[in-house]
Amino acid sequence: MAPVSTTGPVREGSRRRYEERRDAVIDAAARVFASKGYDATTIDDLVEATGLQRGGLYHYIGGKKDLLIAIHERFLTPLLEQARAIEAEDLEPEPALRALAYALMDNIHRYRDQVTVFFHEWRTIEGDERWSDIRRERREFEQIISNVLERGRAAGRFRFADRRIALLGFLGMINYAPQWYEPDGRVSHAEIAEQFCDIFLRGIAVD
Amino acid sequence: MAPVSTTGPVREGSRRRYEERRDAVIDAAARVFASKGYDATTIDDLVEATGLQRGGLYHYIGGKKDLLIAIHERFLTPLLEQARAIEAEDLEPEPALRALAYALMDNIHRYRDQVTVFFHEWRTIEGDERWSDIRRERREFEQIISNVLERGRAAGRFRFADRRIALLGFLGMINYAPQWYEPDGRVSHAEIAEQFCDIFLRGIAVD
Repeated sequence: MAPVSTTGPVREGSRRRYEERRDAVIDAAARVFASKGYDATTIDDLVEATGLQRGGLYHYIGGKKDLLIAIHERFLTPLLEQARAIEAEDLEPEPALRALAYALMDNIHRYRDQVTVFFHEWRTIEGDERWSDIRRERREFEQIISNVLERGRAAGRFRFADRRIALLGFLGMINYAPQWYEPDGRVSHAEIAEQFCDIFLRGIAVD
Repeated sequence: MAPVSTTGPVREGSRRRYEERRDAVIDAAARVFASKGYDATTIDDLVEATGLQRGGLYHYIGGKKDLLIAIHERFLTPLLEQARAIEAEDLEPEPALRALAYALMDNIHRYRDQVTVFFHEWRTIEGDERWSDIRRERREFEQIISNVLERGRAAGRFRFADRRIALLGFLGMINYAPQWYEPDGRVSHAEIAEQFCDIFLRGIAVD
């Protein structure tokens, strides 16, 4: 009879269950923050939304501010992974920018509550010691897009007066979407990303 | 000796002073809300920021929710007036869109705190009876831009897959600016509006 392993697989499974439970807690909290506002949300609201007791909440997350940081990681980590993968593919500048726009719009589609909460409340964690990590990750994402713009410019394919302003215009088109985007709306998130890219890419194309 | 008038001019002057004082109160409140968050701001914070007593605060504004509505009027009223004036000029579609972009970016430059507070907190007043007025005004502003897009399309000058998505892309470029715009930054608000329009107008231009 094979000995029962008490190491790898079991620990792995229990760690996965822990992380799934933690993600579910983060998502439930993001829903409450998004509808009620961060400051107006009490620990009791979070207890009710997550189905955990206070002790359990602290076990998974810690305090309200830790939740806000976890909410940000919840959408930024997969977004950054996607962006790094797109960068590694070394596509031509136009399809690279389209892939990044799609990834960002898909991220908003999947994590609308989380993104909304973060855009409304980032000033709350601006002074936190973990803010520098968040800022570094956000900058890395922006830098990946900025590099694509620069590659296109260097190759004589893109033109713009100022790369930073072009980047912020591109980001703004998509990052404003949480204000109006409805998952069941007339136009899908993929089509929205495509139409924004059609406009933006023609707007910076060298004829 | 000419009789001292106790009607028109005096009342007019006192009304103007009242409105100036009220605007100053609204702006001071917007600064506090923008830096501290709406929910976290107490009546005591507002008393301190405005230099008024509680009674004076109620006299000028009413409660916190009334302040939020007044903050919105503070930037939307002049913006809508400018947009209506631009519409009345009956410009060609390209300069009309540029003028609207400039007006919106100038509004963000002038009323950055007010705009920031509104974008963060509009859900707070979504259920208020005055919300329908606010929504009607916002829609009128969007409709003025949408009409320019449609005029350009009808004249064979603009092309886009979906007018609503094009409108939201245009608004997004500019309305995302409160997240990053610095009044003393490297690029002025007028230049930002110009560069966004360069990209957007080329992006929808019929060759």
